[in-house]
Amino acid sequence: MTQQQSGQVMERIEIMLHPRSIAIIGASAKLQYGGRFLNNLLEAKYSGSIFPINPRYEELMGVRCYPDVSSLPEVPDLAAIIVPFESTMTVLEECARKGVKTGVIITAGFAEKGTDERKAAQEALCDFTRRTGMRLCGPNCLGIANVKDRIWSCSAALPDIQTIAAGNIALVCQSGASAFGPFLARARDRGLDFSYIISTGNEVDLDTSDFIRYCIHRPEVKSIVAYFEAIRDSDKFRTVAKEALALGKPIVAIKIGRSSAGQRAALSHTASMTGSDQAYDALFKQTGVTRLDDWDEVLDVASLLAKTPPFHKKSIGIVAHSGGVASLLADKCEQIMEVPPPSDTTCQGLEAILKGRGSSANPADITWHAFEEELVDILNLMLNEDAFGGVILGTAGSDNQAKRIIGAAEKTQKPLAMLWTGSEREVKGLKLLQSSQVPVFYSVETLGKAIKASLYYHRIREYYRAGGS
Amino acid sequence: MTQQQSGQVMERIEIMLHPRSIAIIGASAKLQYGGRFLNNLLEAKYSGSIFPINPRYEELMGVRCYPDVSSLPEVPDLAAIIVPFESTMTVLEECARKGVKTGVIITAGFAEKGTDERKAAQEALCDFTRRTGMRLCGPNCLGIANVKDRIWSCSAALPDIQTIAAGNIALVCQSGASAFGPFLARARDRGLDFSYIISTGNEVDLDTSDFIRYCIHRPEVKSIVAYFEAIRDSDKFRTVAKEALALGKPIVAIKIGRSSAGQRAALSHTASMTGSDQAYDALFKQTGVTRLDDWDEVLDVASLLAKTPPFHKKSIGIVAHSGGVASLLADKCEQIMEVPPPSDTTCQGLEAILKGRGSSANPADITWHAFEEELVDILNLMLNEDAFGGVILGTAGSDNQAKRIIGAAEKTQKPLAMLWTGSEREVKGLKLLQSSQVPVFYSVETLGKAIKASLYYHRIREYYRAGGS
Repeated sequence: MTQQQSGQVMERIEIMLHPRSIAIIGASAKLQYGGRFLNNLLEAKYSGSIFPINPRYEELMGVRCYPDVSSLPEVPDLAAIIVPFESTMTVLEECARKGVKTGVIITAGFAEKGTDERKAAQEALCDFTRRTGMRLCGPNCLGIANVKDRIWSCSAALPDIQTIAAGNIALVCQSGASAFGPFLARARDRGLDFSYIISTGNEVDLDTSDFIRYCIHRPEVKSIVAYFEAIRDSDKFRTVAKEALALGKPIVAIKIGRSSAGQRAALSHTASMTGSDQAYDALFKQTGVTRLDDWDEVLDVASLLAKTPPFHKKSIGIVAHSGGVASLLADKCEQIMEVPPPSDTTCQGLEAILKGRGSSANPADITWHAFEEELVDILNLMLNEDAFGGVILGTAGSDNQAKRIIGAAEKTQKPLAMLWTGSEREVKGLKLLQSSQVPVFYSVETLGKAIKASLYYHRIREYYRAGGS
Repeated sequence: MTQQQSGQVMERIEIMLHPRSIAIIGASAKLQYGGRFLNNLLEAKYSGSIFPINPRYEELMGVRCYPDVSSLPEVPDLAAIIVPFESTMTVLEECARKGVKTGVIITAGFAEKGTDERKAAQEALCDFTRRTGMRLCGPNCLGIANVKDRIWSCSAALPDIQTIAAGNIALVCQSGASAFGPFLARARDRGLDFSYIISTGNEVDLDTSDFIRYCIHRPEVKSIVAYFEAIRDSDKFRTVAKEALALGKPIVAIKIGRSSAGQRAALSHTASMTGSDQAYDALFKQTGVTRLDDWDEVLDVASLLAKTPPFHKKSIGIVAHSGGVASLLADKCEQIMEVPPPSDTTCQGLEAILKGRGSSANPADITWHAFEEELVDILNLMLNEDAFGGVILGTAGSDNQAKRIIGAAEKTQKPLAMLWTGSEREVKGLKLLQSSQVPVFYSVETLGKAIKASLYYHRIREYYRAGGS
């Protein structure tokens, strides 16, 4: 792809995600795909023009309905195609004639069906985009969402869409049901919010690499969560992933198809040939992409990579309110890096606070001092200790505790991460921490994976910066 | 230990967990250790007699207070010792003179301090129990709870104690802050409930093996979660763990001290010499104990082991409402066992329902049929398929969906487990599932570990049943 071509793609994705007007071809009154698309735009209070298209209605959900694309009073920025499979091409041709520049095809039934006829139908979509220059997301996807601007161009079932906050993580996902399902649900559970949610389906035109490239250039995006069944053009992905690395926008990914059963499933899901798993591992490794196998893990690791500076030394200080939690953390961390003893000065500083209770070693067991004012001094002592490249704190408490932790994190150049030892439903303390720059973990396992990912990510960034290739 | 000795231990633990009267030596008005112990009993509406002991009060929280143990109107079944370190022995001697048979020592400051003097003080406690026959839990623990009978003999800070439900998992934990902290909080988050919560601290007398033995003989206990810093008598533990295996009461454990930093911490926490990690691994393996490193994992795996029958074949059927979720599950399962294609009959049965949508292979992608009545037929087809030794379902939905899943699980001898793809906060569907016999997972990673644990657990049970030793 030339730079000019790439420029056009970025421009079109910009339009797709910030359309001033949207046509919904196949809108309907029922809350199935066509009705949900319209409903989502309305529920999210989309401020642009909405043009439902369906010859059987004069009006849908209070919005004037048009019989076809030709009769629209203006050229919409984005067309959503939610018509029966057989009508897809007719409708697309009509869009092209009208001058529509971008489309999201929700309609399924293409190459994923596995028959020659359906593969040919998908091929025809490719030809169409080349011929007309109209840029497409899909088919067989659930749509795209610009969360910040509340533009939910998607057919997902989303109750309480108004309450979904915008954040710093971009989600680019080949499975629509996963994107608007577990990824969105679990991100909300842990107070992590997305800037964009993009489901790409069969990718006849724009693919995950295109959308990732768009996202890494947006200042509000701090990290990318990606879900792949296949990467169709691995050279293109490598280029984009290296661009992301240079820009300091970490990518954390699930790539399915490790197993033959998973490969079979991907083929019938989005017609993806998943390819050699080892080749993917190598591709991700070369480009600093963290690969994991679980949505919760991917989200928590993306949050740490987005929020914390590098662990500039391979050593860590550990603090907890409980000896048991301290030991658990030490066990996990020592599998990855050093957990060295602190200097005498730090020990003495801690001893002056602990007065014989708990332990001033590393890990430090600070007992009930974790819940008091002096937590600030303890964290400062640990963060200022030269022997530690970062600090992990394991505890759970009040809003006041959270404020002390956030305050300490704001004053340091070192990473400070948190293992939350309380309920994941807690409002006191937890909500504040989740919305702060301190990454919060609920599982020692995942915290370990995140530290490992951060070490690798920053090492490979350094390697390329130093001229590696 | 002779059988008679062991019988006496079981009898005393029975009294400890079902005391008709409790003395709280060191009760106080402040909500610190002594005050919280009294407060917890009151909040949980303990129906026995409570005797707060503190010469400085006539009455505490509305309960008549006594100056010392000698002046009590009767011999309490259980004495809680929450006095300053220096007074521990005096108070214990007084208890012995009064005829008290069991005690929980919350007081800390013994061998975990590391000095000769403090080690000697701990030795003196051992001598005391041998000399007097009084049986002790602790010192340096947070207490014990009989959840079913609402007897919370513990100094933990526990708001809303009335709302804590009783369940089938027993928790035996050397770290009190972990037991009444993350273990309890996370179990409640996932609708898993404990029958007993026992923190054992420095274990001068009764140890984890004693409490585990008691629990495995209780009919309401279906599995045990254990947290070890050290197993002081590995022969004793081996005997108990094999007894648990014979009784079909799975033990799922965290054993800290994998690392040198973790070992340091355990020593200063409950004076535990954690010992060789490889030796522990071998001990656990021999006795069918599942070892994991994370509290959430331990809880979810214990739930599967308690709830489901064995996976009698090393093969599994997978169903999900989304191709993406189906593939993710297939990838994980195929690392552990076969994910074979179903028979033609099963395929045809599924096809008749799916009518060309999704996929009838294994994994099966059943699209929106997961949310409809026909889910029952789909699950029955999968569960009746000879090629599958069990079924995993990945989805999230309504109460009706949950009822369909629970109904299918009740009619089968095969394991049916669930990967919940929605929010962990969901009330619709999830609450019903959590309280059913269907184990619910939130993470593909943990589900994979649970299946692996179940396969191993039942294999080793078979081995011993067949006469292995």
